[in-house]
Amino acid sequence: MDSFDLNSYLFSKRKQINQTIDKIIDQTSNSSVVVSAMRHSLVGEGKRIRPVLCIAASRAVGGQTEDVIMIACALEMIHTYSLIHDDLPAMDDDDLRRGKPTCHIAFDEATAILAGDALLTLAFEILSSIEPADKNNALKLLRVIDTIAKAAGYKGMIEGQIKDIAAEGKQLGLEDLEEIHVLKTGALIEASIITGAILGNGSFEQIEKLKIYAKNIGLAFQVTDDILNVEGDPVVMGKNIGTDQAREKSTYPSILGIEKSKEFAKNLVNNALQALEYFDKKSDPLRAIAHYTIDRKR
Amino acid sequence: MDSFDLNSYLFSKRKQINQTIDKIIDQTSNSSVVVSAMRHSLVGEGKRIRPVLCIAASRAVGGQTEDVIMIACALEMIHTYSLIHDDLPAMDDDDLRRGKPTCHIAFDEATAILAGDALLTLAFEILSSIEPADKNNALKLLRVIDTIAKAAGYKGMIEGQIKDIAAEGKQLGLEDLEEIHVLKTGALIEASIITGAILGNGSFEQIEKLKIYAKNIGLAFQVTDDILNVEGDPVVMGKNIGTDQAREKSTYPSILGIEKSKEFAKNLVNNALQALEYFDKKSDPLRAIAHYTIDRKR
Repeated sequence: MDSFDLNSYLFSKRKQINQTIDKIIDQTSNSSVVVSAMRHSLVGEGKRIRPVLCIAASRAVGGQTEDVIMIACALEMIHTYSLIHDDLPAMDDDDLRRGKPTCHIAFDEATAILAGDALLTLAFEILSSIEPADKNNALKLLRVIDTIAKAAGYKGMIEGQIKDIAAEGKQLGLEDLEEIHVLKTGALIEASIITGAILGNGSFEQIEKLKIYAKNIGLAFQVTDDILNVEGDPVVMGKNIGTDQAREKSTYPSILGIEKSKEFAKNLVNNALQALEYFDKKSDPLRAIAHYTIDRKR
Repeated sequence: MDSFDLNSYLFSKRKQINQTIDKIIDQTSNSSVVVSAMRHSLVGEGKRIRPVLCIAASRAVGGQTEDVIMIACALEMIHTYSLIHDDLPAMDDDDLRRGKPTCHIAFDEATAILAGDALLTLAFEILSSIEPADKNNALKLLRVIDTIAKAAGYKGMIEGQIKDIAAEGKQLGLEDLEEIHVLKTGALIEASIITGAILGNGSFEQIEKLKIYAKNIGLAFQVTDDILNVEGDPVVMGKNIGTDQAREKSTYPSILGIEKSKEFAKNLVNNALQALEYFDKKSDPLRAIAHYTIDRKR
């Protein structure tokens, strides 16, 4: 574990992801304003945590980056679409994201809505254009698309956003808060890990273990987001802090306090690491990412 | 041709489509407001022209309704999502659709944006959950998903909407107008027909002929929409008329006049019928729909 260099792993994987995204949305091939808006929100200093997790999960079961890189990029597009739509005036009304003006500020509302729609649709175009190695792989790709669509859909991420909006200004209990996060961010994080494992030819048992890992780091990631919204550095993060409190949003710090929230996140990471005991050292990237989930500054 | 009863065909296919949509989004299984909003826009008196075309195209190459009914419903969900988003205040700002208040009027903007997102995502969930009859069919399903995603995406329907918004208040030439329609409505209509033919095991030649049919009735459909926006009955149509003129939109009637527009649409339908000469009487539904494209009152 100590010998694994997460920084250089993240650097190299992010580079691969960003280069592939660049190739997919080649600005020069289409001068449409919607493509500019898609690129505006997609290209830049994102953490790329979902695609990295997809690649790392594939590796943990013996797969190669090349086999899942397109899935990884599709996941980032779905995540980015959700950010664009969540930032809209009708929803969270945010003006800063990834260190840049949000999409509807840089362009306009209509373009931002359509750019989000286009990224979501492009994700499924990418997933269905992957050339399957054989006919068994075609079945696996259908399962990958189904897994991602379910996670992103009205029983997953979208329901989380609906519940999140409905909760604004209300004082939630821990259970309701957890439900929102499991849906809003947990579902797609879990799908990222599972689809990497599916296409990496993971066994049923491996995928079950990875689900436990995913659920725990997904929640730990969100608790840390809540903590960073209180005590993070907005310059490092590229987005505003203190926004949760300003909106009277229920968060882990607002319910548990900062210290207990950190303890809670640490326990979740320990659970995730325990689920990885089933795997060999090919899962070192996943191990390191589990620690990173709570140690990150942005 | 004269012996084919289009009305009872449309009645029976729409019934099958509506029942399947009902089963897919079973309100009782999820009490979320987003599901109510999805149902609000999806359920009702829609023409269901895309799903009907998908079923009719499958039939023309020898396929069965049962094999494509899920694709048909997914297409209607994508169409409905595009209506919900196009009707938003940031875009066309319409308040009446399919005889009911538009989604953002009946609910609110945030819910309408998310309901659209959810319908788009659900379409891909439905497409990827279809149980392929065999492994060859899995490859075909991937091709179906790819075809639909491309048609709905930033090189198809979404680009059409962007161009349509940009054109508002400008006087377009026929060529620019046609480009908008080919992208905005033509692409998904063509995809409906092609995917029906793909899953109905159509040959390469059959699919090429159906593309010609599709391009022609797709445009005829739009020309007729423009004509109905001038001289249709808003009660029969379930939406406002005169809106194009009020927005100073370029339309076929505004460029060609009403009579020349009707002539143009008739020529398109004749081209479509010519492409069908390649097929036997299983293509009667497609033939009848070609006539219906311009004869309809809504």
